[in-house]
Amino acid sequence: MNDTAPMQEQRRPYAGYTARHFQWEVSDDGRIGTITLNRPERKNPLTFESYAELRDLFRGLAYASDVKVLVIAGAGGNFCSGGDVHEIIAPLTQMAMPQLLAFTRMTGDLVKAMRACPQPVVAAVDGVCAGAGAILAMAADLRLGTTEAKTAFLFTRVGLAGADMGACAILPRIIGQGRASELLYTGRAMSADEGLAWGFFNALHPASQVLKAAHALAAQLAAGPTFAHGMTKKCLHQEWSMGVDEAIEAEAQAQAICMQTQDFRRAYEAFAARQKPVFAGD
Amino acid sequence: MNDTAPMQEQRRPYAGYTARHFQWEVSDDGRIGTITLNRPERKNPLTFESYAELRDLFRGLAYASDVKVLVIAGAGGNFCSGGDVHEIIAPLTQMAMPQLLAFTRMTGDLVKAMRACPQPVVAAVDGVCAGAGAILAMAADLRLGTTEAKTAFLFTRVGLAGADMGACAILPRIIGQGRASELLYTGRAMSADEGLAWGFFNALHPASQVLKAAHALAAQLAAGPTFAHGMTKKCLHQEWSMGVDEAIEAEAQAQAICMQTQDFRRAYEAFAARQKPVFAGD
Amino acid sequence: MNDTAPMQEQRRPYAGYTARHFQWEVSDDGRIGTITLNRPERKNPLTFESYAELRDLFRGLAYASDVKVLVIAGAGGNFCSGGDVHEIIAPLTQMAMPQLLAFTRMTGDLVKAMRACPQPVVAAVDGVCAGAGAILAMAADLRLGTTEAKTAFLFTRVGLAGADMGACAILPRIIGQGRASELLYTGRAMSADEGLAWGFFNALHPASQVLKAAHALAAQLAAGPTFAHGMTKKCLHQEWSMGVDEAIEAEAQAQAICMQTQDFRRAYEAFAARQKPVFAGD
Repeated sequence: MNDTAPMQEQRRPYAGYTARHFQWEVSDDGRIGTITLNRPERKNPLTFESYAELRDLFRGLAYASDVKVLVIAGAGGNFCSGGDVHEIIAPLTQMAMPQLLAFTRMTGDLVKAMRACPQPVVAAVDGVCAGAGAILAMAADLRLGTTEAKTAFLFTRVGLAGADMGACAILPRIIGQGRASELLYTGRAMSADEGLAWGFFNALHPASQVLKAAHALAAQLAAGPTFAHGMTKKCLHQEWSMGVDEAIEAEAQAQAICMQTQDFRRAYEAFAARQKPVFAGD
Repeated sequence: MNDTAPMQEQRRPYAGYTARHFQWEVSDDGRIGTITLNRPERKNPLTFESYAELRDLFRGLAYASDVKVLVIAGAGGNFCSGGDVHEIIAPLTQMAMPQLLAFTRMTGDLVKAMRACPQPVVAAVDGVCAGAGAILAMAADLRLGTTEAKTAFLFTRVGLAGADMGACAILPRIIGQGRASELLYTGRAMSADEGLAWGFFNALHPASQVLKAAHALAAQLAAGPTFAHGMTKKCLHQEWSMGVDEAIEAEAQAQAICMQTQDFRRAYEAFAARQKPVFAGD
Repeated sequence: MNDTAPMQEQRRPYAGYTARHFQWEVSDDGRIGTITLNRPERKNPLTFESYAELRDLFRGLAYASDVKVLVIAGAGGNFCSGGDVHEIIAPLTQMAMPQLLAFTRMTGDLVKAMRACPQPVVAAVDGVCAGAGAILAMAADLRLGTTEAKTAFLFTRVGLAGADMGACAILPRIIGQGRASELLYTGRAMSADEGLAWGFFNALHPASQVLKAAHALAAQLAAGPTFAHGMTKKCLHQEWSMGVDEAIEAEAQAQAICMQTQDFRRAYEAFAARQKPVFAGD
């Protein structure tokens, strides 16, 4: 008897997913999915369609039966230039409030979906990383940059607030309230060195190596206890505004659940046998 | 028809405001207001009267029709030495609880007013920045220091808790929980270099240049979309203890509001015309 | 009349406490208590018994009549290797959920007790600081390391989540969300230099000096206004997930209470007499 079958039926592989508005590749073992924003001639801007497809993909990945870690990158030496001026900003200047709110909620839903899927997200950031592109990097779990990475939350440059897709909440927790305030009020670019020193980037790599490094990190995570990684991600999310004591209770429950996984037993048995554990994510 | 007239009547210019307990100056264009604590012979201490007037000024500035950015500085090579020992601490040692609480609430109301006004606050910090002076710097949005700046949350040195005017909540978000704990428990001075490395200061400048740099930064912000800046400030404040998803929804609403401003349209039109946008704050 | 007598009777000295599962020493003046994890041949692992005794000791210290500051260290060049593989992990792999949850709640209760006692806790961290050992260091108020300190939240290496004993809530506030995410997902060791640069360690010392430095810092704190220190600790804890305005009100009340202590009066009188204040913690 396989009593998990009913829930298993809700899951499906994403190796065969065909993306329309960006590139989607899954590693041979099915465990690493890579999103590549690929309109390099425009520095990989986002459009209404790519926002929506990204949102739907991240939402769907919560039910993926194969992919355990995600990498997001840009083609052609830049990460992402943000919302396309012609395809997004021009129409926004003509919209009434219900449409505007529908748009800002859709972009926000993308960040919510990135935070809600169980897969850790590794961003590989080279060159221009601006506006909504900077948000995508910010919303990832881990960020690898290049020395050429220029990250700009430049909403203020287009007459808007720094308050976009959660930036006023999330960026201060990554780099500190004072530094985040400067970036959000001025829209100036954060250099790669600043990004490393401030904790935005986990590491810097040469441009030719950053995607490779992101895949190596993803492979390391994919070889780990992926069910437990999903619980780590859930706790990092849900404890955001909990008190300390409530967070401790939340983790007591979360970790007790993980202690009933086979991966926990596998790790112990490997240790006892002086071997390296082989995790299976269950 | 000018249907905003009724609300406009609630607003008034602060260019003509006459301060009694510190210096107040407004730039020729009316957009930058500068507070200078100016009892330099005592390193610019605060008194009951200056606390109250600062609180009232920041509260009033929420309705200013002219001032868009604030600068706060000290005269004579020091920022602020905190509550005056003779004029504040001596009387406090004689007060009963209702009076003490009235005092601590008044000082707290100053920080609340600094965080509630829509204008970004830029602190220019030279020399001594101690006690309530350190709090004023902490409560600003952006901080420029000099290499001589010595910032000390020295409440413990006078027998009090580090818990003053929000320090236990705000300082950890700027420089990290461990560093903030050290400063608040020990009362030791944070050097300028530490302040820069830890994200307390956004930049350091020579003493002769820091006020000029603060005004340049203020001018940059004042030339930006000031309505949107006010929304950024509001979101940085209100999302402090929200969950990530709630913050994202808050920003979806905030940014949709900003997308209906003329500044957003101006930025797009300037971009289309390959010009630099001229913002007007509406 | 001593109207505090009934509450005084609830308090007792900890100088005479005899620890069973670690070393406990109190300084000659009774003000500094030092916990030394002392199974150096195993790098000072934790066991069910030592977890429970540590929890009970920290809970009891809330009522200590003598100890004002705590130091926690490890014997023999290492801090703590975490939960013992044979004595803890092996049995956990055999337990049912009620027992597992009882265990994770007990470990969580240790962190809760460390955060709830009024004494600042100074961790002196040398060598291995891993798993639950890293959590103990994280849960301290202040951390001094050595250049040999290797701090690893290595739960993922044993098939578990990084969500353990509050790590997903607390670590991001100390070193930033991005760096904490990396350490919790990968389980890799944070070097001493990273720990200093990221704000995990307040300072680094040579291995031969770190315990001495921790005791010097503890002595400085113990000579301070210890009642106020307890209020600082309480506010750092309870304001964790408050809004800014609520935190400011909480501190208005907390500081008003401290203004009625004799230590506040002592500090003022010492200042007026141009003397160094002698605090008594009341």
